[in-house]
Parts: sequence; C-alpha cells; structure tokens
Amino acid sequence: MRGADVVVARVAPLEAARPGELSFITHAKYRRQLDDCEASAIIVSPRILESVSIELPMIVTPDPYLYFAKVATLFNPPQIAVAGVHPSAVLGSDSRVAASAEVREHVSIGARAVIGERCRLMPGVVVGDDCVLGDDVVLYPNVTIYHNCVLGDRVTIHSGAVIGADGFGLAWAGDAWFKIPQTGRAVIGDDVEIGANTTIDRGALADTVIGRGAKIDNLVQIAHNVQIGEYTAVAGCVGIAGSTRIGAYCTIGGAAMFVGHIEIADRTHIGGGTLVSKSIRQADTYASSYPLSTMKDWLSNAVHLRHLDELVGRVKQLEKEIKNIRNKEAPND
Amino acid sequence: MRGADVVVARVAPLEAARPGELSFITHAKYRRQLDDCEASAIIVSPRILESVSIELPMIVTPDPYLYFAKVATLFNPPQIAVAGVHPSAVLGSDSRVAASAEVREHVSIGARAVIGERCRLMPGVVVGDDCVLGDDVVLYPNVTIYHNCVLGDRVTIHSGAVIGADGFGLAWAGDAWFKIPQTGRAVIGDDVEIGANTTIDRGALADTVIGRGAKIDNLVQIAHNVQIGEYTAVAGCVGIAGSTRIGAYCTIGGAAMFVGHIEIADRTHIGGGTLVSKSIRQADTYASSYPLSTMKDWLSNAVHLRHLDELVGRVKQLEKEIKNIRNKEAPND
Amino acid sequence: MRGADVVVARVAPLEAARPGELSFITHAKYRRQLDDCEASAIIVSPRILESVSIELPMIVTPDPYLYFAKVATLFNPPQIAVAGVHPSAVLGSDSRVAASAEVREHVSIGARAVIGERCRLMPGVVVGDDCVLGDDVVLYPNVTIYHNCVLGDRVTIHSGAVIGADGFGLAWAGDAWFKIPQTGRAVIGDDVEIGANTTIDRGALADTVIGRGAKIDNLVQIAHNVQIGEYTAVAGCVGIAGSTRIGAYCTIGGAAMFVGHIEIADRTHIGGGTLVSKSIRQADTYASSYPLSTMKDWLSNAVHLRHLDELVGRVKQLEKEIKNIRNKEAPND
Repeated sequence: MRGADVVVARVAPLEAARPGELSFITHAKYRRQLDDCEASAIIVSPRILESVSIELPMIVTPDPYLYFAKVATLFNPPQIAVAGVHPSAVLGSDSRVAASAEVREHVSIGARAVIGERCRLMPGVVVGDDCVLGDDVVLYPNVTIYHNCVLGDRVTIHSGAVIGADGFGLAWAGDAWFKIPQTGRAVIGDDVEIGANTTIDRGALADTVIGRGAKIDNLVQIAHNVQIGEYTAVAGCVGIAGSTRIGAYCTIGGAAMFVGHIEIADRTHIGGGTLVSKSIRQADTYASSYPLSTMKDWLSNAVHLRHLDELVGRVKQLEKEIKNIRNKEAPND
Repeated sequence: MRGADVVVARVAPLEAARPGELSFITHAKYRRQLDDCEASAIIVSPRILESVSIELPMIVTPDPYLYFAKVATLFNPPQIAVAGVHPSAVLGSDSRVAASAEVREHVSIGARAVIGERCRLMPGVVVGDDCVLGDDVVLYPNVTIYHNCVLGDRVTIHSGAVIGADGFGLAWAGDAWFKIPQTGRAVIGDDVEIGANTTIDRGALADTVIGRGAKIDNLVQIAHNVQIGEYTAVAGCVGIAGSTRIGAYCTIGGAAMFVGHIEIADRTHIGGGTLVSKSIRQADTYASSYPLSTMKDWLSNAVHLRHLDELVGRVKQLEKEIKNIRNKEAPND
Repeated sequence: MRGADVVVARVAPLEAARPGELSFITHAKYRRQLDDCEASAIIVSPRILESVSIELPMIVTPDPYLYFAKVATLFNPPQIAVAGVHPSAVLGSDSRVAASAEVREHVSIGARAVIGERCRLMPGVVVGDDCVLGDDVVLYPNVTIYHNCVLGDRVTIHSGAVIGADGFGLAWAGDAWFKIPQTGRAVIGDDVEIGANTTIDRGALADTVIGRGAKIDNLVQIAHNVQIGEYTAVAGCVGIAGSTRIGAYCTIGGAAMFVGHIEIADRTHIGGGTLVSKSIRQADTYASSYPLSTMKDWLSNAVHLRHLDELVGRVKQLEKEIKNIRNKEAPND
C-alpha cells in the first residue's frame, strides 16, 4: 500500500498501536518494538532511518515526537467554550464576563473581575475580586484564584490549584508571630499551564511572576515574590522558597527544592530531588542526592558521613607520615 | 470479674484507656504502660503473654493490632449513604445515578457519567463527563474527577484529591513548549483509598492504573501512565514520575521520589525520603538519604562530598606508596 | 522637610519605593539601595544607624522589620466579615451560625456545627458535622473541614487546605489492608494560620493537635496524632509522619520530612530538605542534605558513597601499615 492511501484515525505508542493507528519512533533503541508493530504508519526521523529499516508507510520529519504531538492535537482538539453562565454561578458586582465565555455551575466570580473571551470556568471555580483573566483561559474544577490576580491569554490551570494565597510572611514579635500583609499579586503570563493542586502565592509587596509559556506540573509550591522565567518547565512536587528568581528556558526535575532569595541562570537544568541551596550563575545540569542503596548498604556506608571530616583528617595525617618516611629514606637512596 | 462479664463501649490506646474501654498491646516493650492502664479488657497475642503477665480480662489473638482494627470498626461503622440527590446538585445529560446513591449539595456530575449503588458524593464534588463509578464509592468534599475516568467498587477518595488531570506531556517546539494531548484515563481499582489533595494524572495515550486494594496517603503525585500494583501502600508526599511501574505488595515511605520510566519489583520496601533513580529488580528495602546531623557537623562533613573522588584518589595513592615502601623493605627482611 | 510633615500612603521595599511611600532597612549590607531610594521616609534601627548615614526622614526602632509589618497592617487592615448567609449556602440541621458571620455562596455547613462571631466562610467552603469554629475564623475558598474538628479563635485557613481527613491507618490482614477507623479529631489552636492545599489529618484514637499561634505554610502534610507546639513555624512542602511531636517555638525549613513516632525538642531549627529520622532531644539547628553539585561533579563523587565503608576500611588498613613501618623504624632511630 502506498503511503498516500493510508488512513489513520488515532495515534498510539509503538508497543500498543493497532491497524488504523499512527505511531512514532523517537530513538533507534526502540527498533525491536517495530517487529510486532501493527500501526498503519509511523513517524520517523532521517537519523533513525540511517540505522533502522522500516517496512511501514512513513512520515519522515526531523522531530518525530513533536510531529506526533501535533498530529495528536489534530485528532484531539481542545474543547471549545460553550458560551453562557449557569444560573447557579454567582457574579460579583461590576464583574465583566465575555459573552463567549463558559461559566459553569457553582462558580463564584468576585466584584469587578474581568473574564476574557472564550474562557472556560469549570464547576466550583472561585475567582476573587478585581482579578483579570485574558482570553481563552481554562480553569478546571475547584480552582481558586485570590483577589487582584492577573492571568494572561491561554492560561490553563488544573483542578485544586490555588493562585494568589498569602505568602508565608511573618515577623517575630517577641512572644508570637506577627503576620505581614501580603499586598502584591500573582501575575501569570500568556500560555502558562499550571498543574493540579499547585500553589502560587501572591507577592508580599511586589508581585509573584510566572513568565510567558512556563509549564508547571502538579503539587508545586511557589512562594511569594518568586519569579519564573519564560518557557521554564517545572516538574511535580517542586518547592521554590520566597523571592527566588529562576531564569528562562530552565528545566526543573521533580521534587527539587530551592531555598529563598537566590537566582538561577537561564537554561539551567536541575535534576530530580536536588536541594538548590545557593544561586547558580552558570547554566549547567545540577544534582545533589544520595545515591539509591539497599538499606543494608546504606546503613554501613551512610554512617561514615557523620565522620567524613575526621576521615579526611586521617588521610591528611597518612600523607604526612608517608612524606616523613620518604624523606628519611631519601638520604639512603 | 470474668472476661465474659466485661462490657466495653469503645477502643482506646494503652496509655489513655479508661474503664469501659478495650485496649491492645502490640509489643512486650510497652508492658510498663500496663501498670496504670485502666482499660476494662485488653487484646494481646500468645507471644506477648510469654513475657508479660496481665491481670486484665484478655482477648488472645495472634495479631492484636488487626483484631483492634476490626473491633474499632464494629464500634465505628462507616457512614451509610442517605439516598437522594440534593436540589443544588447538577446532573449532566444522560448521566445515571443509582437510586441508592447520596449526592450532596453543590455536586456536579458530567454528561453520561455513571454513579453506582450506595455511592456518597459529598458537597462540592465534581465528576466529569463519561466517568464510571462502581458501587459504594465515597468521594469526600471538593474531590475532582476529570472526564472519562473509572473508579472501581468501594473506592474512597479524600477531599481535594484530583483524579485524571492532564499529565505533564510537552514537546519542545524550538521556541515554546507544545502540549501533548493527554487522551488516556485514570483507572482506579476496587478497594483503593486515596488521601487528601493527592493528584493522579490521566494517561497520555495509555491509562494510569492504580491496582486493586492499593492505599495512597495525602499529597502524593502520581504522573501519567504510572502503574501501581495491587495492595501497595504509598505514604504521604511521595512523587512518582511518568510511566514508572511499581509492583504489588510494596510499601513506599513518605516523601520518596521516583524518576520516570522505571520498574520496581513486587514486595519492595522504600524508606522515607528515598530518591529512586533507577529500576529495582530485586525485592529488598532501599534508602538514599544523608543522615541527620547538627548544622555544625553537617557543615564540616558534607563539604567533603564535593571532593570525595579526590579523596578516593588520595587513598589509592597512599596504598601505592605503602606498597612501594614494603617492596623496598622486603629484600631486607 | 521635617519628619513630622511627611505623609506616606503605602509601604514599599527599598529598591522599589516611590515618593509617598515608607520603606525600611533591615541590615547595613543593603545601604547601597539607599542611594537611589525615592521613599519619603524610612524605618531603621539604632544599630544600622551606627554604620549607615541616612538623609531621609526616619522612624528609629529596634526591629525595623516588625515595625514595617505593623505599619503595613495599618495600611492594609484585614477584611471585615459582611454578616449574612448567602441563599445558596446549605446549613445542616441544628447548626448554629453567629449573626455576625459571613457565609458565602456554595458553602456547606454540617449538622450541629457551630460557627463563631465574625467568621468568614468563603465560596465553596465545606464544614463537616459537629465542627466547632471559634470567633474571627477565616476559611478561604474551597477549604474542607471534616466532621467533629475544632478551630480556635482567629484561625485562618487558605484555599484547598483539608483539615481532619482520615489518617493513613492500616493493618495488614494477610491478603489485603484493613482500614483502622480514624475516630480522633483535628484540633487547631487560636491564632493558627494554615497554608493553601495543606493537609492535617484527624487523629486515629486521640487527636491531632496544632498549638496556639503555630504557622503552617502551603502543601504541608501533617499525619494523624501529630502534635505541633505553640508558635512553631512550618515552611512549605514539609511532611510530618504519624504520632510525631514537634515542640514549641521551632522553625521547620521547607521540604523537611519527619518520620513517625519521634519527638523534637522546643526551639529546634530544621534546615530545608532535612530528613529527620530520629528524635531530637537537644535544641540546635539540624541539616541532612547532599550539597549542590554540577551533575558532572556529582557523578564522579556520589558514586563513592556506595563504597564509603570500604574506603574507611582502606584508611584503617593504611594506618595499621604505617604504624608497622614506624615500629620497624623505631629500633634504628
């Protein structure tokens, strides 16, 4: 069958593709999965074709994964807003909701808030007073946006995420903590996507800012006054303490943790589970974890970390002694 | 008083039990707490009785903790569904809600969704289009289930948990991230319990699957296409990156983090705070943390980790030099 | 202009202050930011004035940060409850809501629950049966409080937080997990603030207790039967396993993790990312992380952690050999 005659209706991973589906291969190492592959056609790169021979009808493109993503989007277009406000939704005084927007049941929109064209506010969403949402914003069920926050165009926020809660600002007053009013905003750039149950605090005095096109996964904590650069991707369970600035085009691995008041250079990559304890001026890949071990091995090895300084001292002492011995020997040589 | 005449109305821990309460002892090391114990009776194992003498009326059973759990359940039976749909709940077109189900205020149920017998959907719950819930499912307030997900019988999900949000699937398109449609489902097996504010993403192409009887604590992040085996227990704050497969009967300690695309053998135990950076083929107990230290000790010891390779080189050099010295000595011996 | 004539309308950080704003300086090291500072007046300490000369009108106080916090609160007073119950709110039978309380749209209040004077329950809040809320409690949107929990006066809880969900109590029953009923409560002291999407489980038999004046940041997990002492501050992403008791006046850095059943002394400070694996009897500052490294350095150094015990053995062997050599030399000296 010639490629031009092939009809596909879905995309599927190499190991599960069935007839009528389009699959893709991103690396020559997966070539064995081609043997039993029932896909009707496959997306492949010229580079992979150099080392893998493929019998199936092909789409050849430099980046098969990106091509697959685009085809998958053609087959699964984003849902369109169904214009209208559900009668159970509550709209604050002087709020402005675009006629093309979809406002579902049990939604609450604050006073003077602005909701842009074709926005979709799903059930249980709460948008605070004076918020401004751009066009084509999607807020999944039970998202909360505190007062006065700003969301750009095409922002997507998943369920349970909380934008603009008070930062953790406290002054010790001798016998108790005194709360510092958090009067800044959370400002979310165009095309940002934010994962489920992620929290992004409002600024203390200035704003917390998420740059255009940044992507943030689930259960991420972003503290007050943090800035995230454009197109930076932050994986799940990451925590970023107050006033830290992360550059553009960074990738942050899952469960990485950043102390406050540091700066991370553009295009820095942080490995999963890394504790970033100081500023990074030089773009590179960073890590900081203890390597995985059996508990038995860990018990015998990790205990020495408590005496590493002493061990280094013992090695230094040995070096000194060896030097003494050699000095004594030297005259005899 | 003979045991058969004792009446108890509640269970209580050893240190707090009062007359009229039933307590339990799980290990001989707690024997001192028996001295002042006011419980009217106690659950104990034959093994503990070998080393501890008890005056109280007793229930003797091989596993006192499990027996206690069962008695506690008799005294505190799960709440029963109060059949009916609150008038403020919104039911999507062609949804089917069992007559025995309880659907509370401000609940939203999507189009074509199916809600099984005796389910309890608490206030603020949102169930998406085309979801299928088995019988006796309990969704606590403000739980969100995205469209098309499947929950087995007797699934319990605590407040704020989000099931089926989009996975973190992105392809770099040269100047921005391109979102990969997440078209799989989240499929939750029978008897699974999921903690508060936990997030379980839907699959990208295939499904995310939580096996029957698995138990997941609070604030856990489970990424797209992850599979969790049957009866595995996952403690709080754990993160599991995309496509990782965790076996059956595992226990995962709090705040453990798994990188993506790895496999963990059945019956593996992971210590708290462990970064699981590669597949585990061999069931065992694993760990990976730096041991707790005072900051002073940490500052003097941990700094050497940055030069550990150099230290190993210095030891190697010393060994070489000692060998040279001994070789020189040898002829004189 | 004499200080007494200066009028300020807002507070602002040193680097961003404009005319009409009041700023503050907390350390002499920020003196350079004074050069371009446009603030109309500045809060400063006698100690800083010893080394920094300031031209602006000044407020001199021993703790400029605390003074700033108090001025900021004057300019930004907390919102006052707008008394009344929204018609879409659902109040359970025999619940008692103070006439001065604000109960917003889509709120659900359980049977027999008590809501104190001037409380503010924001949209989507769910308060379970038999809960007791003190006066001046603020629950931000989509907070869930399970049945039977107790909140003191002036408690503030941010969006998405879940108080009183079941703890992770399981007994292994040979072929499946058996759930242990969680019959205790979560009891939150006066003046506690709890961050967005934080989870505080109810006790198993006894209660989970958060002491008066404690402050808890976002995405913190507090397991069943935990006790947090008065005025302890817990930063974001922290996890505390079951039955652990943390003392009063502690500070817990972000992403620190505590195993269960341990005790932490009053006034202990835990660094960010620390795994607290045992009780701390002595107040001090503690840490436990692997230091930040480039991936290249990490790969060359961390691998040796798997052989640290062997390395220590090799050093011990070298010391023995050196001693032998010296013993042989001694007679010749």
